[in-house]
Amino acid sequence: MKYDIAIIGGGPAGYTAAEKAAANGMKTILFEKSALGGVCLNEGCIPTKTLLYSAKTLDNIKSAAKYGVLVEGEVSFDLSRIIGRKQKTVRKLTAGIKQKLAAHDVVIVNGSASILGEDSDKNIQIICNDETYTATKLLLCTGSETIIPPIKGLKESSFWTSKEALDNKELPQSLAIIGGGVIGIEFASFFNSLGVKVNVIEMVPEILGAMDKELSAMLRTDYAKRGISFHLDTKVVEINEKEVIVEKDGEQHAIEAQQILLSTGRQPIISNLGLETLNIELFRKGIKVNEYMQTSHPSIYACGDITGYSLLAHTAVREGEVAINHILGIEDKMSYKAIPGVVYTNPEIAGVGKTEEELIAQNVKHKILKLPMAYSGRFVAENELGNGVCKLIIDSDEKIVGCHMLGNPASELIVIAGIAIEKEYTVEEFQKIVFPHPTVGEIIHETLFA
Amino acid sequence: MKYDIAIIGGGPAGYTAAEKAAANGMKTILFEKSALGGVCLNEGCIPTKTLLYSAKTLDNIKSAAKYGVLVEGEVSFDLSRIIGRKQKTVRKLTAGIKQKLAAHDVVIVNGSASILGEDSDKNIQIICNDETYTATKLLLCTGSETIIPPIKGLKESSFWTSKEALDNKELPQSLAIIGGGVIGIEFASFFNSLGVKVNVIEMVPEILGAMDKELSAMLRTDYAKRGISFHLDTKVVEINEKEVIVEKDGEQHAIEAQQILLSTGRQPIISNLGLETLNIELFRKGIKVNEYMQTSHPSIYACGDITGYSLLAHTAVREGEVAINHILGIEDKMSYKAIPGVVYTNPEIAGVGKTEEELIAQNVKHKILKLPMAYSGRFVAENELGNGVCKLIIDSDEKIVGCHMLGNPASELIVIAGIAIEKEYTVEEFQKIVFPHPTVGEIIHETLFA
Repeated sequence: MKYDIAIIGGGPAGYTAAEKAAANGMKTILFEKSALGGVCLNEGCIPTKTLLYSAKTLDNIKSAAKYGVLVEGEVSFDLSRIIGRKQKTVRKLTAGIKQKLAAHDVVIVNGSASILGEDSDKNIQIICNDETYTATKLLLCTGSETIIPPIKGLKESSFWTSKEALDNKELPQSLAIIGGGVIGIEFASFFNSLGVKVNVIEMVPEILGAMDKELSAMLRTDYAKRGISFHLDTKVVEINEKEVIVEKDGEQHAIEAQQILLSTGRQPIISNLGLETLNIELFRKGIKVNEYMQTSHPSIYACGDITGYSLLAHTAVREGEVAINHILGIEDKMSYKAIPGVVYTNPEIAGVGKTEEELIAQNVKHKILKLPMAYSGRFVAENELGNGVCKLIIDSDEKIVGCHMLGNPASELIVIAGIAIEKEYTVEEFQKIVFPHPTVGEIIHETLFA
Repeated sequence: MKYDIAIIGGGPAGYTAAEKAAANGMKTILFEKSALGGVCLNEGCIPTKTLLYSAKTLDNIKSAAKYGVLVEGEVSFDLSRIIGRKQKTVRKLTAGIKQKLAAHDVVIVNGSASILGEDSDKNIQIICNDETYTATKLLLCTGSETIIPPIKGLKESSFWTSKEALDNKELPQSLAIIGGGVIGIEFASFFNSLGVKVNVIEMVPEILGAMDKELSAMLRTDYAKRGISFHLDTKVVEINEKEVIVEKDGEQHAIEAQQILLSTGRQPIISNLGLETLNIELFRKGIKVNEYMQTSHPSIYACGDITGYSLLAHTAVREGEVAINHILGIEDKMSYKAIPGVVYTNPEIAGVGKTEEELIAQNVKHKILKLPMAYSGRFVAENELGNGVCKLIIDSDEKIVGCHMLGNPASELIVIAGIAIEKEYTVEEFQKIVFPHPTVGEIIHETLFA
């Protein structure tokens, strides 16, 4: 039997593409080596958010008195119940995906698939569990995996990656997080709320990678007050039984750590895929694609983390849609102009489009419009604690090209600015959009007039 | 001294217009008879939201165990602290407005102002506190007031309007809310969370006026389970000491009520304004305006509830901007196509654009795209209780013309659909917007593919 499309990898790119292809009448087969939903659903975005919501519930109870709500007795948490709920949530969502794929007659094969070659009609041949499959088109979306850096003593230690951190049912007394990017900081926030002594070790001068530096520093200062120790510009030299030896400004010192969590980044999974069989070109450490998500082979597409480009589930989803649209002959192409990035701390940080740092580095003329979140009446009504900022980046044509927010619910609001950026609205044009009052989102409207 | 613009009324329309006019170099005077910020800030949107947030905090603590967070002792509330925080919030926001107006040199006069006439140069003359003021332009934005219907026994009872309900520091044992519109239902939700026995009496067959009927019914069913009694299609006949006598299907019965809250609607404040002096035309019960917010007199504008049209603070704000833009000669006009409406219950309902009911009544061809909120992974991760729905209304050109949502944080998300409606996006066009994952807002993206 010949398929219209074969998809290797059942994460956000893969299941989105499979559903869309099948819904459009393509005979579709999906290969997944472990669990449908990929890292995002099984050990990434979704599980972390269930844990972080439990932590937020705990934070909120601790500050309830500020809102006139009084809790007399002890407030505690049951970690195994928190983890149990996470597993239930993942099961529910995985079942939803399975159901949608089944409803569209997508064939799902459990196993590691790889490219075998082409047949005489230029169809792609795939092998999985010793069986050969043939498809007109192939979509590669195997995702990414945690990078394990060559740190002395690391392999001998029983370190966690995000996967183990999500399943652990006993809290360590102290936790050293190596890598202060989004994943590291979300876990720092979670374990801090639960009372664990957290150290964050970051090689560069600020946490949170490419996020807005001013907001990242504000969040860091806030969490430092809540007890997290940040070690910036600091390199990990060696890991011992109960310590991490770090180096800063040429001097070494030890950080106590009953447990280590490694979050130094992720890399595309491209080995054992048979890419060499059809000479699929690479770019940096991922698969090279054009704006239609097509690889160097016209019948083979690649989406999601495997390209090594964006490493975000929502990018993968959109790329999956673009790939299938291109196969179906529907006009579409990938745009990376307005891909939001979110850090699910409490408060949240979210950003979309250009950053100040980026434009300054590129010497591009721009201006900043900025307001404290307290200019939103609802933010004041609902946030006794914590400050926040809304920052808009405007180019020389008065167009909105970036937005960065600190304050809840930034994650839910950032797409509003994303639309403005994607659609290239000017400040004056976007001022005319009516935001409901009172909402936190109004801060975007207010900032346009700042 | 002659002013470039005089503004009567310091609510959302008035303070927005005053700031904008003054920021653009106009000599501006603002008359306010009671408190800057108007009903919205002092006894409406903002105060209710602080109270509702306290109620939500209480709700969340009661359901914390579902998220693995354990509260052992008693959970209670301190109503005078809740009311005190509300007052503090209002003071903070009022001070912010005062500061902004002062920074732009807006002259603020405390008192009831009215139109005296025109001078020979066609300037408008205004009288306030026995003093006469002259201005080139006049903006009327005196807002609206609670309608007191002619119910037998009402005036003799010590009934509350929203104003008194917000300041009361002792809970009644039972509360009858006359009028199941947005204001009535928000208060019903608040007092229900605080343990008061609430009866809602509504004349028409469904609560929440022009909101989507399906979602309104879902919310009503949910609150009925939580203990609110709804009396639909029911008319209030008489009010006694401790009872409300109602009539349904021709039969009368009594509803026990230690306290009555009246929320049967609001009407424009147009008396004692001297409108007759310059023959300002009315439309229905409000002031007639064109799309530039100009009244029948070319130098006089009217914005906000005084037009009797939309009765929402964010409409008033936008109308204030439009009026000042028109005076300044900046191209702009008022659009009511995408004004969001929000009900701040828990969960929230929000809607924008057309409703199914409206299009069916007008016999306009359309289709509905609809998904349960549980299609959003984050909604599942954060909502153990409560269901929700996202509904999009699509016209025959495949354009998005309406959106209605039940589920938190619908209030913050609805503007996303508002932009699509205002900008007349087709389904296919809006599908290309990248929503961050995981967010509740993604439900809009998902529904576009439903």
